[in-house]
Amino acid sequence: MTKPYAIGIDIGGTTTKLGLADRKGNLSHQSVVPTTGHVGLDEYINVLLGEVKQITETISIEKISGVGIGAPNGNYYTGEIVDAANLEWKGRIPIAKMLTEKLGLPVTLTNDANATAMGEMMYGAAIGKHDFIMITLGTGVGSGIVANGQLVYGHDGFAGELGHVIAVRDGRQCGCGRKGCMERYCSATGIVITAKEWLAEKRGESVLRSHDTLTAKHIHEAALAGDEMALDIFDYTAKILGQTLADAVAITSPEVIIFFGGLANAGAFLLKPVKKYMEENLLNIFQDKVELLPSALPDTDAAILGASALAW
Amino acid sequence: MTKPYAIGIDIGGTTTKLGLADRKGNLSHQSVVPTTGHVGLDEYINVLLGEVKQITETISIEKISGVGIGAPNGNYYTGEIVDAANLEWKGRIPIAKMLTEKLGLPVTLTNDANATAMGEMMYGAAIGKHDFIMITLGTGVGSGIVANGQLVYGHDGFAGELGHVIAVRDGRQCGCGRKGCMERYCSATGIVITAKEWLAEKRGESVLRSHDTLTAKHIHEAALAGDEMALDIFDYTAKILGQTLADAVAITSPEVIIFFGGLANAGAFLLKPVKKYMEENLLNIFQDKVELLPSALPDTDAAILGASALAW
Repeated sequence: MTKPYAIGIDIGGTTTKLGLADRKGNLSHQSVVPTTGHVGLDEYINVLLGEVKQITETISIEKISGVGIGAPNGNYYTGEIVDAANLEWKGRIPIAKMLTEKLGLPVTLTNDANATAMGEMMYGAAIGKHDFIMITLGTGVGSGIVANGQLVYGHDGFAGELGHVIAVRDGRQCGCGRKGCMERYCSATGIVITAKEWLAEKRGESVLRSHDTLTAKHIHEAALAGDEMALDIFDYTAKILGQTLADAVAITSPEVIIFFGGLANAGAFLLKPVKKYMEENLLNIFQDKVELLPSALPDTDAAILGASALAW
Repeated sequence: MTKPYAIGIDIGGTTTKLGLADRKGNLSHQSVVPTTGHVGLDEYINVLLGEVKQITETISIEKISGVGIGAPNGNYYTGEIVDAANLEWKGRIPIAKMLTEKLGLPVTLTNDANATAMGEMMYGAAIGKHDFIMITLGTGVGSGIVANGQLVYGHDGFAGELGHVIAVRDGRQCGCGRKGCMERYCSATGIVITAKEWLAEKRGESVLRSHDTLTAKHIHEAALAGDEMALDIFDYTAKILGQTLADAVAITSPEVIIFFGGLANAGAFLLKPVKKYMEENLLNIFQDKVELLPSALPDTDAAILGASALAW
């Protein structure tokens, strides 16, 4: 019997969000618990179990196909969260096993970006697509790659690090220790670095000069107001992203590239020039074939939905 | 019942090679026919049918699981050879359909590089591997990418163009119309271009100066003899290849990268420094995990074996 529900758990640095999804992506029984501040991992697990129990008090556990978890550094193969920089537990946390044992439900874990890709395939902009790339432009850049209808986890579960493809050889220093990673240019963090560099190096008027603490949102607002430097900054960001995506297309030949996250919401300022630069840099056999689309998942629930999609 | 044999057909620009493979990669009934010089496509197909008939006269067709074809620009999804530069038929050649109808056996088509990747997985260096990259360093650079145990064809059948990833932004002019493609540096053609550029630009003694028509083989021989410029040329080639592979690893996280083709035979001069440069450029989570291996398929039969592997 096909079970009609799946539980999604999105583990973030500050809060953990839970919800029950049906096969169309309708969420119910949503709740939020703190990720931090527990006496230990066991207490956190008990809090999660309590939340799941609240769900299974109204929906029979027989109707739930499983639990999906999206977490930073979540590894699909081992079911472990490994050395996640944003979480207070260090080392290897075998969270899938811990929850499976206590719940009696299958628990599947992966990282946030992969979970979002699954969410797009199940409920979002990639329904019916077998080959696509989902890219998250947030504080950093994450990505989930689907080929032949399956997530590309790689042999170790760590595939899909598009944000750490070298976009500019010997370019900006990245937190990963190398230079020129795409996420140092094309994330919310990256676009602010570009703006600061340009404001220091270039003359020219810009409303961006009026901010003490510049954010990606300020740059977006300035672009909306027609500020020339802000528009140029988006164009530069789009160029680097378009070039990098053209190379990724040569490798996996996706039908669609889906954009998610804060910077992706800058919409026309980013996606339109990204498309132009990607096409300019594509090998001829790939030209005019790859669609660029914004995510079709609701911003606030995307992570829970993505996590739940793992459980089908 | 599992059928014990498969027919492999390797369509090259000059000759077409056929053979019957068992599940261990033992070949029998090999034959070679010209690809060119036939009155038309139908005559060529009839020649192929005649060769297959010779096989089925000694081995019952009931024992043959199917026919696999490797061909330039062969498309897995459509079964067509499309505008192959090295073949005399232009446009779309629905070769899989034409042969299936006349043979009564399933016929599967893909391009040479993908066929070789399948051969490595079935009989070669990737037996039991589910995530790997096969890269052919010949006149050009081809590649076949396997994820989750399946070839990554992409939505259109054209995935795996690692040779056309931009290795050097605004670099050497490529035949594809763009600049800086990896194959302009890391193929037999590319290494000769490097040598010619260096001989013109640099001073320094080198036995390479004594050749009127320089080939990759000359450069390999010079390296074997300890010629310093030849060794530096290999090091430069390896650096660009290692950098490009590091980016590819970030995308698909393969367990192994397998090297095939003329330039790959330069072995230690290439693979050892490629490994070094790849490791230097890898994101930390991928370091010391990816094995680089030479192909385990016999050079002369690799293409037939690869083609046959499609039929299982």
